[in-house]
Amino acid sequence: MIPAPFLLYLGHSSDFAGIKTSRGLAVFRPEDCVGEFRHDDCPLSVGLPRMTIAEGAAAGAKTLVLGIANSGGVMGADLVADATAALEAGMNVAAGLHQRLRDVPALKALAEAKGLQLFDVRDPPADLVVGTGYPRAGRRLLTVGTDCSVGKMYTTIALTRALQARGIPADFRATGQTGILIAGEGVPVDAVVADFISGAIEMLTPGRADRGWDVIEGQGSLFHPSFAGVSTGLLHGAQAEAIVMCHDPVRESMRGLPGRKLPGIVECLAANLQVARLTSAHVRAVGVCLNTSAMAKDAIAPLCEAIAAETGLPCVDPMTMSLDPILDMLDA
Amino acid sequence: MIPAPFLLYLGHSSDFAGIKTSRGLAVFRPEDCVGEFRHDDCPLSVGLPRMTIAEGAAAGAKTLVLGIANSGGVMGADLVADATAALEAGMNVAAGLHQRLRDVPALKALAEAKGLQLFDVRDPPADLVVGTGYPRAGRRLLTVGTDCSVGKMYTTIALTRALQARGIPADFRATGQTGILIAGEGVPVDAVVADFISGAIEMLTPGRADRGWDVIEGQGSLFHPSFAGVSTGLLHGAQAEAIVMCHDPVRESMRGLPGRKLPGIVECLAANLQVARLTSAHVRAVGVCLNTSAMAKDAIAPLCEAIAAETGLPCVDPMTMSLDPILDMLDA
Repeated sequence: MIPAPFLLYLGHSSDFAGIKTSRGLAVFRPEDCVGEFRHDDCPLSVGLPRMTIAEGAAAGAKTLVLGIANSGGVMGADLVADATAALEAGMNVAAGLHQRLRDVPALKALAEAKGLQLFDVRDPPADLVVGTGYPRAGRRLLTVGTDCSVGKMYTTIALTRALQARGIPADFRATGQTGILIAGEGVPVDAVVADFISGAIEMLTPGRADRGWDVIEGQGSLFHPSFAGVSTGLLHGAQAEAIVMCHDPVRESMRGLPGRKLPGIVECLAANLQVARLTSAHVRAVGVCLNTSAMAKDAIAPLCEAIAAETGLPCVDPMTMSLDPILDMLDA
Repeated sequence: MIPAPFLLYLGHSSDFAGIKTSRGLAVFRPEDCVGEFRHDDCPLSVGLPRMTIAEGAAAGAKTLVLGIANSGGVMGADLVADATAALEAGMNVAAGLHQRLRDVPALKALAEAKGLQLFDVRDPPADLVVGTGYPRAGRRLLTVGTDCSVGKMYTTIALTRALQARGIPADFRATGQTGILIAGEGVPVDAVVADFISGAIEMLTPGRADRGWDVIEGQGSLFHPSFAGVSTGLLHGAQAEAIVMCHDPVRESMRGLPGRKLPGIVECLAANLQVARLTSAHVRAVGVCLNTSAMAKDAIAPLCEAIAAETGLPCVDPMTMSLDPILDMLDA
C-alpha cells in the first residue's frame, strides 16, 4: 500500500485531461490529500491548498503522487528534479507513467539511500496466468463505454459507494492507474501482456461468497480500434452478471481518432452483452451513466429521459444524480 | 534474420503438440533444415535425419532452433545444457519460449564469448504504438478460427503460396513464434502489451500499393475466453478485406478448457465479420479451411460439402486439397 497522506503533483501541466490522476485522488480521497504542488506556469488546480515540496512534507505528506500523464509517458528532467526534491524531503514517490520511476537510476539510488519507496502503479503482477472463463462464485458488475475516458472510473466508484450506502458489501476493483491509486490496489490491465488480459481480471476478482459485489472498472471500448482487445478480455475475465454503459454526450469523435464517430448506445450495449455472454450467459445491462459536466443544466434531464426511453434502462449522471434507479434495476 | 540452415531440437519431448515449432520448420522450410536433435527418450520425429549437436554442426547447421513448447515456457537444466553444447559447437541458438535465452546468464556469456547470437523470437518490437484503424492501402486477408491451434498458420502459409503460384504478389505475415521462425520476421502478438495489439498488426502490415496481398496469421479465437482479446485486436489491426475460417473437425472442446464446446462455424463467421467491420466496412468471408489429418479419408469430402452448403463458402483442407475455390472466391 502506498503511504498516505499525499501531495498531488500537477507540475507544469496545462491540459485538463493530463492531470486526471491527481484530480481523481482529490475527488475520491480528499481526506488523504494534504495539498497540490504546481509550478507557476500551471494554470490548473484540483482545489487543494498549493504547497511547495517542503510545505507538503511539513504538512505530513508521506508520498508525492505524480498524478499526471505527460506526452509519451516519459519523464522529463523537470519531473525527475521534482521527484528528487520530494525524496530529499523524506517523501515516497508514486507514478503511473509508462516509464518506471525505478528505471531512473538517480531516483532509484536516492530512494534506496533515504530508505524511501518508489511506486510504479503501472507494473502488472508478475504471476499472471491465462483466463479460463470457468464459472466462479460472487456477484460482479462491470462498467463499459462507448469510448475511452467517458467516466467509467467515476461511475464504478460511485456505484460501489452507493451499494455500500445500502449496506451491501461492495469493492471497487481498479484496472487503471488512477483507479489503482484511489483503491490502493488493482491491476493495470492495459499494461499486461496480451495473452493475460482476461486472466488478470479473473485474478483481480476471485470468487467470493458473501453476496457482496465486485464493481469492476472497465477500460476502452469495443468500438475503439486501438483498445477493443483490452475491452474484450475485460468482459470475458469479469464474468459480470451486470454491465453499466458509460457515455459522454458531448464527445464528437472517438478519443484520439478525429473523424471516427462514437457508436450508438443501443448498438454498443448489444455488442457488449454479446461478448460478455461467452463467460456469463445471463448477463444483463442495468443502466446508462452520463458525464454531464459540460452540458447545459436544462438539457440534462431531457437527455436522460430520451436515453432511458431508447434503451429501456435508467440513465443518470453518477456524480450529480441518485444511482438508486440503477441499484433498483440491479436488485430486480 | 536467423542464420540458416537449422538443426531442429526435439529434446525430450513426448507430446506431438509440444514440437509444433520444429515441425512447422520441417514442413515449410525443409530446404533450410539439416536434421533433428532428440534424446533417446523422445519418441517423436519430424522426418529429418537424427543428428548429434556435433553432427549437425558438421552438416553445416548455423542455428539450433529450440522448436519446442515446454511446460510454463521455462528452460530446464537439460535445455540449457543442450543450448550450451550448440554454442560450444559454433551454432547460434533460437527459441520462442516465454523465458528468454538472454536471461540465462551462462548462455548470454557463452554466446558473447564465442561471437554467436541468441534469438528470442517472442520479443515484441520495442517501438510499438497504438493502432488507429485509419484506412490504409493494400489488400489483406486474415485467418481466424473456431479455436486456438486449428491450423491458422498452415492455412495462412498455404494461401500465400497459392497466391504466389498464380503470379500474385503475396506475403505471409507471421504473428506467432513458429510462423516468425518460418517467415524470418513477424510480430509475436500474444506477447505485446495489451494496449498495442492492433497497433502491432498495423505495423506488421503497412499500406502497400502493388496490388499484392498481406496474408496474416490469426491467433486464438473470439470464442476462447483466454485469448479473445488478442483475436479482437488482430481483427481491428488487420483491416482485412477477406477472412478465412479455420476449424478442426475432431476437436471436442476448446483448447485447454475441457468441457467448453467449440462455436458453430456459421456463428463464428458472423461474430468475426461483425468485429472486423469496425475497421473494414466491406470485409467478407471467402472460405473455410479444415485440418482433416485425424479424419477417415472417406469422411472428408462429405464434411467439406456439408460445411460449404451450410456457410455458402468453399471448404477445403489447405494441406491436401486445392485452394483454388477460395482464391476464386477472393477474386470474385
